[in-house]
Amino acid sequence: MTKEKIKCGIIGATGYAGVELVRILSTHPQAEIVAVSSVSFEGQQLSDIYPNLRGICDMTLEGADEIIPRCDVIFGSLPHGLSEPFAEKCLSHCAVFIDLGADFRLHNEEDYSEWYGKRYEHPELHNEAVYAIPELYRDEIKGAEIIANPGCYPTSVALGLAPAIRGGYLEKGTVIVDSKSGVTGAGRSLTQGTHYPDTNEAFAAYKAGVHRHTPEIEQTLSEIAGEEMKVTFVPHLLPVNRGIESSIYVKLRDGVSFDEVYAAYAAAYENELFVRVQPKGSYANLKNVRMSNYCDISLHFDKRTNMLIVSSCIDNMVKGAAGQAIQNMNLRFGLEESCGLDFVPPAF
Amino acid sequence: MTKEKIKCGIIGATGYAGVELVRILSTHPQAEIVAVSSVSFEGQQLSDIYPNLRGICDMTLEGADEIIPRCDVIFGSLPHGLSEPFAEKCLSHCAVFIDLGADFRLHNEEDYSEWYGKRYEHPELHNEAVYAIPELYRDEIKGAEIIANPGCYPTSVALGLAPAIRGGYLEKGTVIVDSKSGVTGAGRSLTQGTHYPDTNEAFAAYKAGVHRHTPEIEQTLSEIAGEEMKVTFVPHLLPVNRGIESSIYVKLRDGVSFDEVYAAYAAAYENELFVRVQPKGSYANLKNVRMSNYCDISLHFDKRTNMLIVSSCIDNMVKGAAGQAIQNMNLRFGLEESCGLDFVPPAF
Amino acid sequence: MTKEKIKCGIIGATGYAGVELVRILSTHPQAEIVAVSSVSFEGQQLSDIYPNLRGICDMTLEGADEIIPRCDVIFGSLPHGLSEPFAEKCLSHCAVFIDLGADFRLHNEEDYSEWYGKRYEHPELHNEAVYAIPELYRDEIKGAEIIANPGCYPTSVALGLAPAIRGGYLEKGTVIVDSKSGVTGAGRSLTQGTHYPDTNEAFAAYKAGVHRHTPEIEQTLSEIAGEEMKVTFVPHLLPVNRGIESSIYVKLRDGVSFDEVYAAYAAAYENELFVRVQPKGSYANLKNVRMSNYCDISLHFDKRTNMLIVSSCIDNMVKGAAGQAIQNMNLRFGLEESCGLDFVPPAF
Amino acid sequence: MTKEKIKCGIIGATGYAGVELVRILSTHPQAEIVAVSSVSFEGQQLSDIYPNLRGICDMTLEGADEIIPRCDVIFGSLPHGLSEPFAEKCLSHCAVFIDLGADFRLHNEEDYSEWYGKRYEHPELHNEAVYAIPELYRDEIKGAEIIANPGCYPTSVALGLAPAIRGGYLEKGTVIVDSKSGVTGAGRSLTQGTHYPDTNEAFAAYKAGVHRHTPEIEQTLSEIAGEEMKVTFVPHLLPVNRGIESSIYVKLRDGVSFDEVYAAYAAAYENELFVRVQPKGSYANLKNVRMSNYCDISLHFDKRTNMLIVSSCIDNMVKGAAGQAIQNMNLRFGLEESCGLDFVPPAF
Repeated sequence: MTKEKIKCGIIGATGYAGVELVRILSTHPQAEIVAVSSVSFEGQQLSDIYPNLRGICDMTLEGADEIIPRCDVIFGSLPHGLSEPFAEKCLSHCAVFIDLGADFRLHNEEDYSEWYGKRYEHPELHNEAVYAIPELYRDEIKGAEIIANPGCYPTSVALGLAPAIRGGYLEKGTVIVDSKSGVTGAGRSLTQGTHYPDTNEAFAAYKAGVHRHTPEIEQTLSEIAGEEMKVTFVPHLLPVNRGIESSIYVKLRDGVSFDEVYAAYAAAYENELFVRVQPKGSYANLKNVRMSNYCDISLHFDKRTNMLIVSSCIDNMVKGAAGQAIQNMNLRFGLEESCGLDFVPPAF
Repeated sequence: MTKEKIKCGIIGATGYAGVELVRILSTHPQAEIVAVSSVSFEGQQLSDIYPNLRGICDMTLEGADEIIPRCDVIFGSLPHGLSEPFAEKCLSHCAVFIDLGADFRLHNEEDYSEWYGKRYEHPELHNEAVYAIPELYRDEIKGAEIIANPGCYPTSVALGLAPAIRGGYLEKGTVIVDSKSGVTGAGRSLTQGTHYPDTNEAFAAYKAGVHRHTPEIEQTLSEIAGEEMKVTFVPHLLPVNRGIESSIYVKLRDGVSFDEVYAAYAAAYENELFVRVQPKGSYANLKNVRMSNYCDISLHFDKRTNMLIVSSCIDNMVKGAAGQAIQNMNLRFGLEESCGLDFVPPAF
Repeated sequence: MTKEKIKCGIIGATGYAGVELVRILSTHPQAEIVAVSSVSFEGQQLSDIYPNLRGICDMTLEGADEIIPRCDVIFGSLPHGLSEPFAEKCLSHCAVFIDLGADFRLHNEEDYSEWYGKRYEHPELHNEAVYAIPELYRDEIKGAEIIANPGCYPTSVALGLAPAIRGGYLEKGTVIVDSKSGVTGAGRSLTQGTHYPDTNEAFAAYKAGVHRHTPEIEQTLSEIAGEEMKVTFVPHLLPVNRGIESSIYVKLRDGVSFDEVYAAYAAAYENELFVRVQPKGSYANLKNVRMSNYCDISLHFDKRTNMLIVSSCIDNMVKGAAGQAIQNMNLRFGLEESCGLDFVPPAF
Repeated sequence: MTKEKIKCGIIGATGYAGVELVRILSTHPQAEIVAVSSVSFEGQQLSDIYPNLRGICDMTLEGADEIIPRCDVIFGSLPHGLSEPFAEKCLSHCAVFIDLGADFRLHNEEDYSEWYGKRYEHPELHNEAVYAIPELYRDEIKGAEIIANPGCYPTSVALGLAPAIRGGYLEKGTVIVDSKSGVTGAGRSLTQGTHYPDTNEAFAAYKAGVHRHTPEIEQTLSEIAGEEMKVTFVPHLLPVNRGIESSIYVKLRDGVSFDEVYAAYAAAYENELFVRVQPKGSYANLKNVRMSNYCDISLHFDKRTNMLIVSSCIDNMVKGAAGQAIQNMNLRFGLEESCGLDFVPPAF
């Protein structure tokens, strides 16, 4: 325990993912927050904006550039299109950059241009970046200088489908992903669609077939499959604060039994601390993973249509953002992967 | 206006669909509630159980058998397996029986046996029954003695897919229906899964691939198609009081354009008072149909996968139960179809 | 029924009270909306902003000045400080002005200045204005040209205390009012405090002792008492869409029995359609009045401290705003007071 | 760290307070759960009933009597009237008994009889019991064999008023406490009043003036005051999972300034880890203490009526139950008081 703690800085600390990083890092035994940054609230105390943190993290918000030199690792929690300069600065200061935004997630610049409407300004940086779902890319993460923390929806889908794809159990065809996300997924910025009376007692799809997480999902599934996979992805806004449930629909190949598939999932995640395959007949519920880094997966089978239905639940702000980022930090810095992440999800 | 009002009786008036019938019939200009019945609360005043009705409907709950002879129409809102004797009694008293339960919905006794685990006791009654989605079976309903009011999920799906099937726009293959229902869909009976702290800030699928509405959905879609259609149906419990959103995934045939499909929906529902096809780019939201008899439908297209996505929203207790039942009563008794159903859905 | 309908115009139609006026007036048998106005959305269709109204009220939003000459009554639903010019214009066009804002509620300009920070620009107009809780000021309303529709909290408190004050049952001393309001009370404008993730699973007081409804409450209670009454008023933000519950604490004078007080309430409201005194032992619940014009009142007694506790519940948007405004219109135009207001509050 | 961990047993582990004890103790560095007990679910795994605990606490539920001999401390989380035999058995096995129920809270058997309707069966045990709000009774707790963990409402009120009473700032007269509690306060047992559609979008008072926490509140306030204090206490059911907000109304004595009172609170809680006095002008919000052991207190002043308004917020299940129980265990066993309780309340 005499080892020095990892010095962490957070850029975009007043966004929802940022403040969730603060929540988790505040009790991390091997890391400490040394600086927090925010464009909108520079000069204010973090606990003035988030009174839940009063007495816990009363640090003053600084400018982003000032904090990088003092840190071993920088978490960037920013809208897309802003990360490259910070990544570059981190590299030049030998700080690891963990990007919770989208800029380093897609391997192919064409995809990035198509879905995000801009080109790379520093293409060479992207060679340093590793797309970082620990359960799938553990080894690459250990040596990465730029860690592309995955999107929330893609995390739920990749973990939900990996064993089925790897096992070769699926018929060719479009994967259908019907996801539902709590409102924190839309961020802290005010919009009519997240105004309480508009959101409460409401439910609707949004960005059907055109959400920016689509190419990220396809990239990972295709990598696992070793061939192109196509996804129809439809997210919905769910009137809860936290959590994602993704219901994934894929046909099993003829001759593949549900038991075989279930056994493959159980084996694949047997030694994964943060993935819990539910007993047959139970349903993953986002309630059971809130405030924690777990991904709960349940498997169901419609024998009439030979359809495998995977329900994959995460807390969009933990395994879908801050928790996975810290899991990646742990991996990168040689700590135990679950260090500081042993949150017990509350029953209510 | 001198015409006598239709005399209505409600069996199962203290269930959620029952009390919603009371809410709507209380202000219906051409119908009146003459008796309410409940097994559990016989002898009590309805407004003791539902204080929202105090001063509006303070009627005493009676036994079911007593009320049939005094009514022109009986609404049965009962668990499955209990409707046949009431239907028979209604026929013998020349009262129309509108069954909000499941017993008369399936045309095929084998399906009923398979999914509900029992056989018909009075098979001959089922010949008198009409499956009653007014927008699809208007003419048959006008002459029916037994009206099988459809299930909530099947209503949302049938209205959501009918124009696409009729137009022949869909590729063959399994229809995927991912539905989400407000908690009133689970009824008034107490269960752990609908206990507030278990349900609030929660979301999960249930009965994936095995829900009893599956054969009902397939029956209607197949009838419209003129050939067998198969559905994978997965419902989810949504932490709101009311409303269903069904996201329906079907592939368009090669050469069919989204514009063509959209135009077919617009035309199909142009003269339907209760179906509102949303403008392109808008999303149906269950918020916008709550407390009303509307079905809002929005259409979306994933051109990358040629997938049509239909989002169909109803209030599960109105268009999905009591409202549609009264729409059917209006049709059957020669009233204007929207009589007593001109509820404006509240904005919040 | 051949009588011509009252021509209604709504200024501020896209605010929450405005759109609730639209909801109610859309089915009013003796009134019709002839024009809607909005500063922010002029030129757009109302149903583009509120898709729940699609097919019901697709009117185009106009400028406020254009609509007054075409109307018999104008409902103003505006932030305070903006009503005087509209009131004046209505008077000059012989239209009744029903102000849902605060500008005409206080009889005393000094109070208005103190609490709202500005003076009257047209003091003479205020002589034409009647503070309009129908159950308390029915006769004055019938002849009013300017109707000051009361605030939501003051309505719940005045109806909740009137019989106790009139009966002379209360000891002198500060009245304590602890109120809780649904989020629509804060309006449609976006604020951090009404952003869904900030509001959901949250509860706090606000403006304790300094809310602008305080002088309005004191004005009415003092008028009823015939002497000055003082109130400590603390509102709280409640994570529901609609509804207010006010818990009111007053000491009974020695020798006054709870039964006597209860009987006085029962008698006072016996013939009031919209006030429902709950049976002893029952609790008023805002759930039971939502979407309706009811005020439910329950009475409780702490005999250990001789404290009378009144729980008074209304829908802040109906009896607390749009519904009461229409009740006032009905009174003013000689219609039956409940005309168009016979909404049955839903059970859920 | 070589010190042996405290061996903890939980009786009533499947109730809400019980499962919250499990959540907190699971990551306590100096304590371990060695056994869990439940009458209703004996023989089942705890994680079958609470799937959030899968992989975290899969222990099998045992009978209560079996577990006492193996434990250093027993937490009893039981309905009132059942604790005495367990307390006795703990004493005979040299285990500390921490009772989260009500049986040992009242010093006066007459009060217990009056409010709970039964007498003590083992009066001598009650001499061993200490009423245990650590911030008020720290020294007594250190030597206690039976620890009476306070009720949730009384905790919020005692911490909210102690400095004002101690300072002698209050006029004589009834204290008014208007409290609002999340639904977990009503427990895990199914009731109509906590059925989701009945609770959601609802709000009402209950047990006004007759709640069993009343004598407990009066006992503590009177002890602090050194003279009898009377309280009118009215709880309300709040549609959130967790949290209590108590708004407390007390008149200041003439000549006492609000600044003086505020300073006294700041001083009283300056060194208390778990009580956070909010800056002037800020409001305590139950959101900011959820999942944590904090009590947030804000002070407000209505100078017009000389009324001090205290808003006191806790998580009913943590500082109001399991967290405070563990704080008491820490005190009793000589650990740092905050050991295992350093939860950061989430921002959302």
